[in-house]
Amino acid sequence: MTSHLADRLTPLIRNCWYVLCWSTEASRDLRSRRVCGDDVLFYRTSAGQVAVMRNRCRHRSFPLSRGRLQGDNVVCGYHGLVYAPSGKCVFAPSDPDNRSDISAQTYPFIEREGLIWIWPGDPTLANQSLIPSTPWFTRPDWDYVSGYMPYPANYVALHENLMDLTHFAYLHTGNIGTQEYAAAPFKVATKGSRVNICRTLERCSLPALLAFPTGLGDKLVTRITDTWYESPALNLTNSTVVDPSPEPGSTARFEFKVVHFITPATQSTTHNFYAVARKFRVGDPSVPEHTRMCFEKAFREDQDALMWIEEAQALEGIDFAEIHVRSDRGSLLMRRDLKKRALQEQSPPGCSENYVA
Amino acid sequence: MTSHLADRLTPLIRNCWYVLCWSTEASRDLRSRRVCGDDVLFYRTSAGQVAVMRNRCRHRSFPLSRGRLQGDNVVCGYHGLVYAPSGKCVFAPSDPDNRSDISAQTYPFIEREGLIWIWPGDPTLANQSLIPSTPWFTRPDWDYVSGYMPYPANYVALHENLMDLTHFAYLHTGNIGTQEYAAAPFKVATKGSRVNICRTLERCSLPALLAFPTGLGDKLVTRITDTWYESPALNLTNSTVVDPSPEPGSTARFEFKVVHFITPATQSTTHNFYAVARKFRVGDPSVPEHTRMCFEKAFREDQDALMWIEEAQALEGIDFAEIHVRSDRGSLLMRRDLKKRALQEQSPPGCSENYVA
Amino acid sequence: MTSHLADRLTPLIRNCWYVLCWSTEASRDLRSRRVCGDDVLFYRTSAGQVAVMRNRCRHRSFPLSRGRLQGDNVVCGYHGLVYAPSGKCVFAPSDPDNRSDISAQTYPFIEREGLIWIWPGDPTLANQSLIPSTPWFTRPDWDYVSGYMPYPANYVALHENLMDLTHFAYLHTGNIGTQEYAAAPFKVATKGSRVNICRTLERCSLPALLAFPTGLGDKLVTRITDTWYESPALNLTNSTVVDPSPEPGSTARFEFKVVHFITPATQSTTHNFYAVARKFRVGDPSVPEHTRMCFEKAFREDQDALMWIEEAQALEGIDFAEIHVRSDRGSLLMRRDLKKRALQEQSPPGCSENYVA
Repeated sequence: MTSHLADRLTPLIRNCWYVLCWSTEASRDLRSRRVCGDDVLFYRTSAGQVAVMRNRCRHRSFPLSRGRLQGDNVVCGYHGLVYAPSGKCVFAPSDPDNRSDISAQTYPFIEREGLIWIWPGDPTLANQSLIPSTPWFTRPDWDYVSGYMPYPANYVALHENLMDLTHFAYLHTGNIGTQEYAAAPFKVATKGSRVNICRTLERCSLPALLAFPTGLGDKLVTRITDTWYESPALNLTNSTVVDPSPEPGSTARFEFKVVHFITPATQSTTHNFYAVARKFRVGDPSVPEHTRMCFEKAFREDQDALMWIEEAQALEGIDFAEIHVRSDRGSLLMRRDLKKRALQEQSPPGCSENYVA
Repeated sequence: MTSHLADRLTPLIRNCWYVLCWSTEASRDLRSRRVCGDDVLFYRTSAGQVAVMRNRCRHRSFPLSRGRLQGDNVVCGYHGLVYAPSGKCVFAPSDPDNRSDISAQTYPFIEREGLIWIWPGDPTLANQSLIPSTPWFTRPDWDYVSGYMPYPANYVALHENLMDLTHFAYLHTGNIGTQEYAAAPFKVATKGSRVNICRTLERCSLPALLAFPTGLGDKLVTRITDTWYESPALNLTNSTVVDPSPEPGSTARFEFKVVHFITPATQSTTHNFYAVARKFRVGDPSVPEHTRMCFEKAFREDQDALMWIEEAQALEGIDFAEIHVRSDRGSLLMRRDLKKRALQEQSPPGCSENYVA
Repeated sequence: MTSHLADRLTPLIRNCWYVLCWSTEASRDLRSRRVCGDDVLFYRTSAGQVAVMRNRCRHRSFPLSRGRLQGDNVVCGYHGLVYAPSGKCVFAPSDPDNRSDISAQTYPFIEREGLIWIWPGDPTLANQSLIPSTPWFTRPDWDYVSGYMPYPANYVALHENLMDLTHFAYLHTGNIGTQEYAAAPFKVATKGSRVNICRTLERCSLPALLAFPTGLGDKLVTRITDTWYESPALNLTNSTVVDPSPEPGSTARFEFKVVHFITPATQSTTHNFYAVARKFRVGDPSVPEHTRMCFEKAFREDQDALMWIEEAQALEGIDFAEIHVRSDRGSLLMRRDLKKRALQEQSPPGCSENYVA
């Protein structure tokens, strides 16, 4: 019985802060991205403020991103309705009345530390204190490499992928994986709805992703991989490498944050906004190129894997009884939380008090 | 509550005369076109008579258009059944019996004034007096330009597009649209099930589509756009341009008929047989090229727009509450008529008397 | 009322021996093929034994064919689970426990006379005596040409195609069909669940497929086509050509076996493993090339025909009342058997006794 675990058919969770885009993606161009099924428009005003609204004219469903900017307003490309950055319709060419009743659908959103967050659910629940803190993107003693990858699969599978890094040695051989990783002992813990899985490897060699920026090459070191399922929107790994015998004057401890902001696009497609932050070699231009190269290769492999699994489940059904192994413990707790959140949203208000996972 | 308005999910209306093809499209080649979901075969006999029948062998559903003509008969390309132009099976190679009981499905149809009309619904209701008159295609004092365009969208959206020409200025900027058009006052009227929307612009400049054939260029003129939703199969615009100060001996009044024969192919694809007839410059060979150029550019834009809207509605649902503006009045009356016709067809006979829109 | 006849919507029959592949297709490469909806992995061990299991890791549904062989075992490409040729999991890198409870889904299968057979249904019913005998593939006095073709259509349509060879003259004109074939008298018989249709043509000319290997050219001969629906998995034609006036010392009687092993892949796609065996010109290298050329042209035409029919039925519905002709008698008995088998599988056990076709 796995009905308490989220899977590809579980309704998407709307009451959550998701990343809509990196700050650098928002510009004076009209762009759109799908979030939990909704196509969402984003752009910047001439003063640089972010505007976010549904990418669908309230009149005849035309995608506003196919229209044009007129100053800070968006003009629909079909019948010319004009929307202010607030989403409010300020002009309807073929309606002489004041149509202040018309507004594009809007969402709570905020730009913070290099990211634009959106809340596709009930606006009354959009508490900004729920947005995770991401200080490594702004503090001067940290540097980071970031990017974006789409996945042709449901977002639960991507969360699972990230909660069980034992796949590195098999799916990403010789790139970000090492053989000894899978067999390493691990601990699983929870903190509220957050789930943690932590592995410590002593006297291990590093995969290329970590060996290059640390400059440790083949040296045997201690590696701690401390992964957190933070929310439906975020998987965060604190990756620490300790050199047991550093050269005099060299760094002995290297800290990374490997961040995956996960945003469900549709039931079967997912956005991944990734970043690798580091607390050393700040500003060194050779790191981003190498990190991106490692990640892009690995992500192509992940895209294939998740697509194949999605296809198998779509074609052959999901009732195929998957069997869990020991290292799935974190993953199962995560899927339990996703299912619980999804059911809470589907329940009529007032009933959620009685929900038992 | 918009349940009284037709939309992309409303069942197609079969009890209607639709254009199957221009007369020029029917030849000694076997061709087929989908009408209200049915694939329909059409060709001409050696004497030039039109033959129309379902493009599906009654035996094993093979598309007859993939077979071949044998004299005036069609030979199925699978097991060789032979159908006369009437649709009746006249030979079954592997059945020695007289199989006069076999017939391809047939439809009432008629060739008239350059068009071949088909009635995909109940044949007992196929009254030819319901076929609209199209005298401009045959009278010597009229000339016309015609063509065909497919649309990747439900036919209701194309009717809406044509009932609200205020989109010209936005979707077809600088081609067939002018800015002042959207703001012009208009009148809406009905005549039986027909719906009329009429705009008169005084001292306006003309879009290229009208400026070129009239030779009026940038001159400020009076423009009357008198659009009729005639039936599920036809939108007709009487477009009149009046030059308030014609050169001595020049034409002062220019009459156009802009005709869109709309034939639903499937629930999400539509045929558009268009024509622009004019009562001046008859036989002038420079007009067709210019008119087609204007229309084809505009139709590509319409195809994109309707496809984007169709996609949004298909992916995100149609329950998104579209809001109507003043200029939609004609459109809403049209959609109300389409919905009423669709419901009447779905109702069991005898109940239709009690139907209240 | 055709509810007693199988069609494209009838559930696939799993309790049957189907061909998974030719023996020559199984190698040290990991390959997969879909059978009755299941993706099935097959390969050979280093000792040449065949291994067959579901192409889906029991852990997270990854396709095992995307992993790699490690000796005779398959390593999953996602988290490294290792499966023995028996399907049993022998190592789970991230689970220190003995996970002997994990096994890939397996199927009864057997390699016999150049074919690998699989039983996708209830294993307790997989009686090997039900596998048809195919002696022509191994006996020294027979030779054969074989191949594989996929069809974009439901398998019932392929069975129908083969039970009514009157289509040869129309779909495969001038290649494997002759005009007189369709009009020839025929007999239909049944033997248990098997259905036979047999045609004898006196003084007929041969189609290229038979004319070339027999060397009879345009000579008028006797041709007997004795076709058997053997099971959902097999259509077999005993094709005999008799030369009424052979040259002295020449062969007078030519025997062919035209074999189609039919394996449903999904509800709308089908595998066809074909072979033409002959009891003359054994070892002659000129025959295979000619036979394959004839068949491949014919099969492309069959693929098109079945795809068009599948599309018509999918788009326009299957309730279109197809009418049967005399030569369909064998086909209808075959479809009746397929429907009966499908219904028996769908019935709860114990009820099948009461089933009346």
